[in-house]
Formats: sequence, structure tokens, C-alpha cells
Amino acid sequence: MKTEIRLSGSGGQGLILAGIILAEGAILSNLNAVQSQSYGPEARGGASKSEVILSNKYINFPKVVKSDILISLTQKSFDEYSKDVRNNSIIIIDSGIDIKDNSNPNIYKVPILNTAKEVMKKPMTANIITLGVISSVLRYIDVEHIKYAINNRVPKGTQELNIQAFEEGRKLGSMFLKH
Amino acid sequence: MKTEIRLSGSGGQGLILAGIILAEGAILSNLNAVQSQSYGPEARGGASKSEVILSNKYINFPKVVKSDILISLTQKSFDEYSKDVRNNSIIIIDSGIDIKDNSNPNIYKVPILNTAKEVMKKPMTANIITLGVISSVLRYIDVEHIKYAINNRVPKGTQELNIQAFEEGRKLGSMFLKH
Repeated sequence: MKTEIRLSGSGGQGLILAGIILAEGAILSNLNAVQSQSYGPEARGGASKSEVILSNKYINFPKVVKSDILISLTQKSFDEYSKDVRNNSIIIIDSGIDIKDNSNPNIYKVPILNTAKEVMKKPMTANIITLGVISSVLRYIDVEHIKYAINNRVPKGTQELNIQAFEEGRKLGSMFLKH
Repeated sequence: MKTEIRLSGSGGQGLILAGIILAEGAILSNLNAVQSQSYGPEARGGASKSEVILSNKYINFPKVVKSDILISLTQKSFDEYSKDVRNNSIIIIDSGIDIKDNSNPNIYKVPILNTAKEVMKKPMTANIITLGVISSVLRYIDVEHIKYAINNRVPKGTQELNIQAFEEGRKLGSMFLKH
């Protein structure tokens, strides 16, 4: 089993941290994990990405080539990275993103940024809400392990807020993603 | 030009953040950069590593195989990762680490943890002191770009402290590393 996940958006949305937490949750669930970010010409253009590869085997090539799961929180990052997905890839995007091609049944629009702003009242929690959404498809990672990693990695004083954001993300996952 | 850097130590020393800042400083200096961390059996053993690859070309294989620069802040991480360095690699280790083989002229003992504790009075600044030490050998990254990335990435309210820690690290670099 190997799952390649790309979290994309704009700089400052906290997706590096989301990737680190996901990787830590995975290793607590006895998987191997690599988390990385590349900075190149595309980063200079404003689309940012954080990648996580999970496997029950040793991970040889740690960079995502084509993703099994793509998350995009911004139009720019969706336009950039939706080209590099596998055929049966799960694509989870923020509701605000415009899809030109509606024929792909594996694209799920989820109101992540709106939930951060209107439900959590903290736009900065979008990254942890995103984690909650992803967790609802990554059944082989124990949810408690992701929560442990959240508590371990988010700034002190924001743990409770972020665990709430994670639970909001899980609700979105169960409402908007077909299983 | 391609430089593979491995920052190793124990979990909680902030070396992931140091790697992210270094990668961001490099991209501001118009290089390409990949920062990553792997979690596998060795992470479960307590030695943690953060890797950065810098290049003026596209980076194909983003994982460090043999490092050009190895940093170790703990005995365990030195014992683990000093096996995988190139022949002419620069090895920068904390002064507290015991080297069994004294024949390698490229190993530099630098009092990083002690400077964090006794000069900065903040053990948690060891990661940024380390960055300062590294910056003194990475001449092709503009120091101001690293400082910009520090200010951008460290928690609000700790910027000034961390810039001081960076400058302490640069002093250590000029004192302890031969150029």
C-alpha cells in the first residue's frame, strides 16, 4: 500500500504543518511517511504545495509524481496541480474553486475556507479542517493518532481550537465525500 | 551546483523548522530547494532528521542519499547519520558529542547547545543557532534572505530573539569552522 497526497494552496495557509501532522499521525499508526515541500519556479508564482507519502513499505522515491489524493484550497493551486493526478485520484477542493471540466466524478467540493471563517471564526484553522476532511478517507490512520500529532505540533494555547477544527473537518468529510 | 544537507538531532529540537527556513532563504536567493523529513524505523528510535537539497537546477531526486553537509546535535543522530556522508563532507556536530574516530579533519565540534543554554538562555534557540553556523559555509545564500525567512517563519514575538540566535550561530561559524 502506498498513498501519495498533495496539499496545495497559497503560502501562509499552513499546509506544511498539516503535512507534518499527517505524517506524524501515520507513523504513530505504524506506517512509514515522508513529508516534503519543494520550492521552485512554481512556488515563486504563488501556488504552494506540501506533499506526504504514506506506505507500509520503505519509501524509495519520496516526491509525489502523480497524486492519489489532491487537496486544493485555491484556484491557482488547483489549476497547477490538477494536471498531475492519477486516473482514479480523489480530488478535494475548496467550494470557492471553479472547475472548468465537470465530467470528473472524483472531484469533491468542500466548504473548507468558509467553515474556517464562519464556523470556527478563525481563517487560520483551514489547514486543520483540511486534515479532518482527509482523515475521513485515510481509514488506515487511527484518528486518535492524528489528534495526538495535532496536540504535539500546533502552537501552545491553540490545541483545543485546532482539535475542534479537526472535528469540523471530519464532519465535512462525512457530509461531502461519498465512500 | 547541488548541496545536500542533513540536519539531525532529537525530536523537539526544531530542526524541521530550521530546514524550512533554510530552503526559503535559498529560494529567495534564486536557487531551487526541497525540504523533507522521513519518518520510519529510525525515527521511532529517537534520532530525527530534516533534509534540505539546494540546487541551481531542477531537483530530480529530492531525498538526501549521502550528505555534503551533516549537522548532528545529539550522539544518537551522529552515530546514525555519520555513516552516510560523502568523502569530503563537512560535518558540524555539537561539542557534547563523542567522536570515536578522530582522523576525519572535516568534523567540526561547535558548542551549539551550550550557546543556546548559556548565551541565549533559551535552549529552544539551538535550531536557529545551527542555521547561523550553516550559513557561514553556504556562501551562495544571501544572509539577509535567511533572516527574512526567519522573521517569516518563527512564532510571532520571538523574531528578535531568533535573529540574535542566528547572529550567535554566525559567530560560532566564524570561530570554529576553517574556511
